[in-house]
Amino acid sequence: MTARRALHFNLFLHDTGHHEASWRLPESDPHALLDLAYHQRLARIAEDAKFDSLFLADSPALFGDVGRRPQGGIEPTVLLTALAVTTSRIGLIATASTSYNEPYNLARRLSSVDWISGGRAGWNIVTTAGEAAARNFGLQEQPLHAARYARASEFLEVATKLWDSWEDGAIIADKASGVHALAERVHAIGHRGEHFQVEGPLNSPRSPQGYPLLVQAGSSESGKDFAARWAEAIFTAQPTFEEGRAFYADVKRRAVANGRDPEHLKVLPGLVPVIGDTEAEAREIEAELDRLIAPEYARDQLAKVLGRDPESLPLDRPLPDDLPSEDEIEGAKSRFTLIVELARRENLTVRELIGRLGGGRGHRTFAGTAVQVADTIQHWFENGAADGFNIMPAVLPSGLEVFVEQVLPILRERSLFRSEYTGSTLREHYGLPRPVNQRELAVAS
Amino acid sequence: MTARRALHFNLFLHDTGHHEASWRLPESDPHALLDLAYHQRLARIAEDAKFDSLFLADSPALFGDVGRRPQGGIEPTVLLTALAVTTSRIGLIATASTSYNEPYNLARRLSSVDWISGGRAGWNIVTTAGEAAARNFGLQEQPLHAARYARASEFLEVATKLWDSWEDGAIIADKASGVHALAERVHAIGHRGEHFQVEGPLNSPRSPQGYPLLVQAGSSESGKDFAARWAEAIFTAQPTFEEGRAFYADVKRRAVANGRDPEHLKVLPGLVPVIGDTEAEAREIEAELDRLIAPEYARDQLAKVLGRDPESLPLDRPLPDDLPSEDEIEGAKSRFTLIVELARRENLTVRELIGRLGGGRGHRTFAGTAVQVADTIQHWFENGAADGFNIMPAVLPSGLEVFVEQVLPILRERSLFRSEYTGSTLREHYGLPRPVNQRELAVAS
Repeated sequence: MTARRALHFNLFLHDTGHHEASWRLPESDPHALLDLAYHQRLARIAEDAKFDSLFLADSPALFGDVGRRPQGGIEPTVLLTALAVTTSRIGLIATASTSYNEPYNLARRLSSVDWISGGRAGWNIVTTAGEAAARNFGLQEQPLHAARYARASEFLEVATKLWDSWEDGAIIADKASGVHALAERVHAIGHRGEHFQVEGPLNSPRSPQGYPLLVQAGSSESGKDFAARWAEAIFTAQPTFEEGRAFYADVKRRAVANGRDPEHLKVLPGLVPVIGDTEAEAREIEAELDRLIAPEYARDQLAKVLGRDPESLPLDRPLPDDLPSEDEIEGAKSRFTLIVELARRENLTVRELIGRLGGGRGHRTFAGTAVQVADTIQHWFENGAADGFNIMPAVLPSGLEVFVEQVLPILRERSLFRSEYTGSTLREHYGLPRPVNQRELAVAS
Repeated sequence: MTARRALHFNLFLHDTGHHEASWRLPESDPHALLDLAYHQRLARIAEDAKFDSLFLADSPALFGDVGRRPQGGIEPTVLLTALAVTTSRIGLIATASTSYNEPYNLARRLSSVDWISGGRAGWNIVTTAGEAAARNFGLQEQPLHAARYARASEFLEVATKLWDSWEDGAIIADKASGVHALAERVHAIGHRGEHFQVEGPLNSPRSPQGYPLLVQAGSSESGKDFAARWAEAIFTAQPTFEEGRAFYADVKRRAVANGRDPEHLKVLPGLVPVIGDTEAEAREIEAELDRLIAPEYARDQLAKVLGRDPESLPLDRPLPDDLPSEDEIEGAKSRFTLIVELARRENLTVRELIGRLGGGRGHRTFAGTAVQVADTIQHWFENGAADGFNIMPAVLPSGLEVFVEQVLPILRERSLFRSEYTGSTLREHYGLPRPVNQRELAVAS
């Protein structure tokens, strides 16, 4: 690439903020999760600031004790569709599960969001860990980690075939002859696999981006292999620069091994910026939030990820030594390892660990001045640890506003981030090509 | 009821109009199916005219020859969500299949549309006939008609339990104590049935309407039984007043037999109004459209519904005598019977039948002056054949505009249709109560 490499920013929308106690602040609306106007306001701020995209996490289940923090929001394809109508440039990335959807339905719906938004849809592909989701879909236990990824891979094969089932020029709309589409350019896919049998074609023509931007967020071995094969962007939790750089090199190498251009796989670590006029003020903002966490509730959540009884995790003791290894975990493997390594590396008690996780759930929290935040972003970006960041404000909208008003101008002064959008689709924002139709490729070769 | 009974109107959105050749008219945009601005314009006209609701049909498959008319649009929950943002009062009814969705996913998504729209969501419940859909979901043949309805009934049990899994007062959002929701008012459903095992609770709180308005459109025996148990509104194809009156009496009787108030099941026959300054002009508009139909293509579609080879249906002969009986049809039973009875009653050739079906696919087409259209609406409404109508303009938007400008003023003069909305939710427009939470009902009794 001759053009200067530029930062990418995704805004991870999450209720009143990523800190689990953020809803308890005087400034926060505790009913925000279900409020369209609130989300429209956040989207407007992010689009005015020229973020590449917005992103919503999701799982088809309620987790743990519903009492202690807002849970159960609006389904992401629905909410992002509503936001597509009141925005015009920013990308819109919805999480959806390959374990608990049918490829025909999900491919159709994501194609529809791409149509509605004029080419701004993205899909964060998840395999959905946990028993709670499994039990909402007729299973007693979650499918094994390897089985979930095997299904995910075949799901992507089916979905991309469906998205390519209409060639781009299939619709001719010739009123005089009465021919609307050329039947010979709309194809059955006839997929017969281990998990899916899908005849096709899709009941929507190929969408503005061909298909939505493919995003992936798991960092287990299977997750990285999957990302190297399918993903165009990765959201990842990397608590330190060294880990971030190793992860970045690892997934880019895997992409190359898959015959892909490593520039076409963007790596965006999560970042929880807590910004103060001084570093001390930033740390005090952080500590104040942590004091609002209900420790017993947070411990229940932690115990689930670790596969332990909550009672076996006394609040003022370090994690026990006899935890299982990642190999034995069938849930969210990379999240398990992240948490255990964080606790051991910094020799944290359970209570301290809970404080660290409460802020950004294992993502990198950085408390400091706006200049310090800009410096760390630049450092990661210029030294092989990030192509951009998944911005996860501890408190919304105020944490986003501070980031936009104080950090982005510094990065613009350093010519690291755009002042205007240059493209109109989500892939154009990330500097990624529109996928070629596999079927047309097959004919051409 | 002491208040005067009032007409209800639903607008059935369908591309450039319900006449299959409407896309070929000079005024029509042949790319309308995928155009959000076009649909926003239609929604605006209907809302300004105080229609109760908009409705989109759907099936998870492409049917027949894609070449001859626009096919493959935007998925209804996505498109109606987008329309929710640019409207404020009109109801939004999406078709979704009980045979090819999981109840947890669909219940969540419909609840989300109800949240986004402030209580304006409706669900047209379909079981989805046809091999094409089955083959997109791992099946070689469609499930039998009775099996589809058995699954649909259990699907509704699960969905309503999920929608009721959060009591209305579950969220207290108490910042001081850190309690967001009362865990004892959010319930697992523990459904263990023949088709579904779903643990719950739903990952969205109970929505503004409790749950979306339930609409049904099949008119087979199973369809009518299902409607009498679950539906709050029925869309139905009734070609003559006598048939319409018999159907109306039949489903209201079935609702009473189910212990329901028959006023809480609204019957809306389809009506394709073709309006001219004179009756002769209206008939000429109709004939002109019919001349644009491609007969061989239309015959292929007809042959599928009748379960015959197209070659066995010569265009200028009546339907053959040796058609199967409705009992032998596993596809859309009531549609089969409607078409056969229409052809036999009026002694139509295949070509003439195709003309009749091309206009409104078996729904009642009425060509006449605005006064004649208003008269027939009033006649059906006041003589036990309809609570309102599912308006299916042959050409959109012009056919809608003529209906709104010429027919609605006559009905308002006769005090039969509203001049302003009085309610804010879809159920309020139809004069239906918000459903009581079954769980709260169980506790109270």
